[in-house]
Amino acid sequence: MSITMHSASVPVFVRILNAMLGWLDKAQAHAEARKFSPDNYLTLRLAPDMLPLVKQIQIAADAAKGCAARLAGVEIPKFDDNESTLDELRARIRKTIDFLQSVPAAQIDGSEAREISIPMRSGDPLRFTGEAFLKHYATPNFYFHATTTYALLRSAGVELGKKDFLA
Amino acid sequence: MSITMHSASVPVFVRILNAMLGWLDKAQAHAEARKFSPDNYLTLRLAPDMLPLVKQIQIAADAAKGCAARLAGVEIPKFDDNESTLDELRARIRKTIDFLQSVPAAQIDGSEAREISIPMRSGDPLRFTGEAFLKHYATPNFYFHATTTYALLRSAGVELGKKDFLA
Repeated sequence: MSITMHSASVPVFVRILNAMLGWLDKAQAHAEARKFSPDNYLTLRLAPDMLPLVKQIQIAADAAKGCAARLAGVEIPKFDDNESTLDELRARIRKTIDFLQSVPAAQIDGSEAREISIPMRSGDPLRFTGEAFLKHYATPNFYFHATTTYALLRSAGVELGKKDFLA
Repeated sequence: MSITMHSASVPVFVRILNAMLGWLDKAQAHAEARKFSPDNYLTLRLAPDMLPLVKQIQIAADAAKGCAARLAGVEIPKFDDNESTLDELRARIRKTIDFLQSVPAAQIDGSEAREISIPMRSGDPLRFTGEAFLKHYATPNFYFHATTTYALLRSAGVELGKKDFLA
């Protein structure tokens, strides 16, 4: 018995993506209580030269779907990056969860040594084994954008606690 | 060939803790260029009711050492939470890396089904198998505090990019 590539990827991502839906519900309630549009969250940034919340969620979702697709050797579903409301962001998260859950576990399992190549905007692609890609690239990248999303909402006054992250 | 409990924990934590040392070096250089004390970073918070940078680093380090110790079934080394300078925080990160690297891989491997119990300040302890503890508690908790540390430094003007996180 040991950790499988599927069990170390899809359920980990799905759990946090579901938690994220919960953060957005609390954000919506906070906006309603304070009488501002919940869509205002999408442009929040921790610093003027950091990506706004909408991009943080898009990239977190993409890190998850890209990881599962690459490990499984299937085409990465393309989502347009055109969300402009909190509801549309929720839909994107749900679409991502649906895709993750549609990939058969057996197709991801056994991908430890699969060659993964990530195209870079400039220069040579990054090359990994499936296992290194999952542990040292896709997972930290996913958590990076998920936590930044949490930090943005939390610093905007949404009542979130660690339990909402580890839910 | 599949992911082992050791390979999914210690090298993952060590990599990010080493990256964190790099962030602190850049933070120090930024402070020196702007002529403020690098120790000023320790009290930065993303919101007044969030934990300051010094706690974020302490907790990230504790998540890593607690995870490795619990999986290995050894006593968790106790570090006093008394860092008051950036240099002391660096020392804590290095001590954590040293501890992580001191735990024999074979003692962590095979801990998938080990019963892990996390005492809670109030109420019943959280109980996990070793595998669920690693994937759904220790790792997200670690990344949560590591990313918040990054976000604090980044929003304070330190020149960090994603490459410094995924280093």
